[in-house]
Amino acid sequence: MASPGELTVRSGRVKHARRLATRAFRASEGEFLAEGPQAVREALAETGIAIEVFATVEASERYPELVTQADAAGVEWHVVTDDVVAEVADSVTPQGLVARCHSMVRSLAELPADAGFVVVCADIRDPGNAGAVVRCADAAGADAVILAGDSVDPLNPKAVRASAGSLFHLPLVVHRDVAEVVADLRSRGLQVVAADASGDLDIFDTRVDLVPPTAWIFGNEAWGLPEDIRALADSVVSVPIFGRAESLNLATAAAVCLYATAWARRATEASS
Amino acid sequence: MASPGELTVRSGRVKHARRLATRAFRASEGEFLAEGPQAVREALAETGIAIEVFATVEASERYPELVTQADAAGVEWHVVTDDVVAEVADSVTPQGLVARCHSMVRSLAELPADAGFVVVCADIRDPGNAGAVVRCADAAGADAVILAGDSVDPLNPKAVRASAGSLFHLPLVVHRDVAEVVADLRSRGLQVVAADASGDLDIFDTRVDLVPPTAWIFGNEAWGLPEDIRALADSVVSVPIFGRAESLNLATAAAVCLYATAWARRATEASS
Repeated sequence: MASPGELTVRSGRVKHARRLATRAFRASEGEFLAEGPQAVREALAETGIAIEVFATVEASERYPELVTQADAAGVEWHVVTDDVVAEVADSVTPQGLVARCHSMVRSLAELPADAGFVVVCADIRDPGNAGAVVRCADAAGADAVILAGDSVDPLNPKAVRASAGSLFHLPLVVHRDVAEVVADLRSRGLQVVAADASGDLDIFDTRVDLVPPTAWIFGNEAWGLPEDIRALADSVVSVPIFGRAESLNLATAAAVCLYATAWARRATEASS
Repeated sequence: MASPGELTVRSGRVKHARRLATRAFRASEGEFLAEGPQAVREALAETGIAIEVFATVEASERYPELVTQADAAGVEWHVVTDDVVAEVADSVTPQGLVARCHSMVRSLAELPADAGFVVVCADIRDPGNAGAVVRCADAAGADAVILAGDSVDPLNPKAVRASAGSLFHLPLVVHRDVAEVVADLRSRGLQVVAADASGDLDIFDTRVDLVPPTAWIFGNEAWGLPEDIRALADSVVSVPIFGRAESLNLATAAAVCLYATAWARRATEASS
């Protein structure tokens, strides 16, 4: 039976992990935390991402395959008391597992050259939304997600949790200047489609062609996309409201747009 | 300038409102709380729903149109101190406004006879998901939402908030027995489509015809739909995963399914 090692809430490495709760420390260290069995499993599956795991006695016994996986990957597995996990974790219920990981965030220059389905979040503030968009982008088969402008850090613990492991599956880019992102994507030959309620076309309009290489841009939860960014896009497309809802939430609108893209491409493949 | 009236956190009507935080009290009283300017506005717009409004001095001055709306509707507007609103509200930031409302929840027998696009949530536990599904159902033009089985109360404060006013826009039914809901919908001539990752058809398959009257069933966040409920459905349909995501969250899957329905119907109308 596993028993807690020497680490306490006052240990240096526990304090270090705890400080990764702040964006500034995550950025300066190039590290972040993945919490819970699913995220820890995904982190361990990616080469060179996980650095160390803090696990309670109970979690170490409940997930022996993760202990084996960490061992095979050369990742230190620290069996710790519950209060150490509670100290490190952001979540109320991290199920006794937290992994310290190297950041996978890339620069815009590192966006894969062949990315033909890209999702851009401009000034998205809610970490739950950012994580939900990453998860949905992964599910719909997107090649990358770019967090642009004043968007929330995709390595924020709540964003990591909401992504349900998907942040390990596709390239994540952070770039401050939204206009530069748009210019870069256009120079790569992608059409840039802004999702906005003000769109003159709606997503179901037959004139909206999502088969060519496409980057979607989604704006802030409250105020959408600023006029200057919409002006830079090749088209502005809305998700129509058929009932009386005032608006859609960001993750819902993104789901409809990204799956419409996946669908258009599959239909083209099927008929070609 | 408005000034706080006599109500304190010890007043009977404040204590009554506070108790509406629990499902049992909401059910016994047939009442619930709507928090924040948007929900209060929607509640006041529906005849016979709002009973009284608790508003801080600041909110009363910031939303004079709501004071006028309440007055026109014969709804009492109580200007209260901040601590009274904080006492009543579930939300940390209800923006100084809480309305006590009559429940709009209906029985299955009260489902409108002409409902041809119905959304059923079976055993959905997270109030944020329930509210998100109600909002998306409204946006996609659904005729009603049924919370079936052990689902969360749609009048839970977090569900009300997540619905962003949409819970006032379409009939909400609560019914404990999921099998009875399915039988009732089929007897009304609706095809019942279960959304589940186990589906043998996916939502983009041309054999999935969403134009006829349709009821969608979505299952629990963690375990989906039980086998006996899937067996009762006319078909089981999945939302395909194109990337490496393990699954979609409930609200995302619902968005794709409900908008696919709206899209199929619009395409049919356009071509007929």
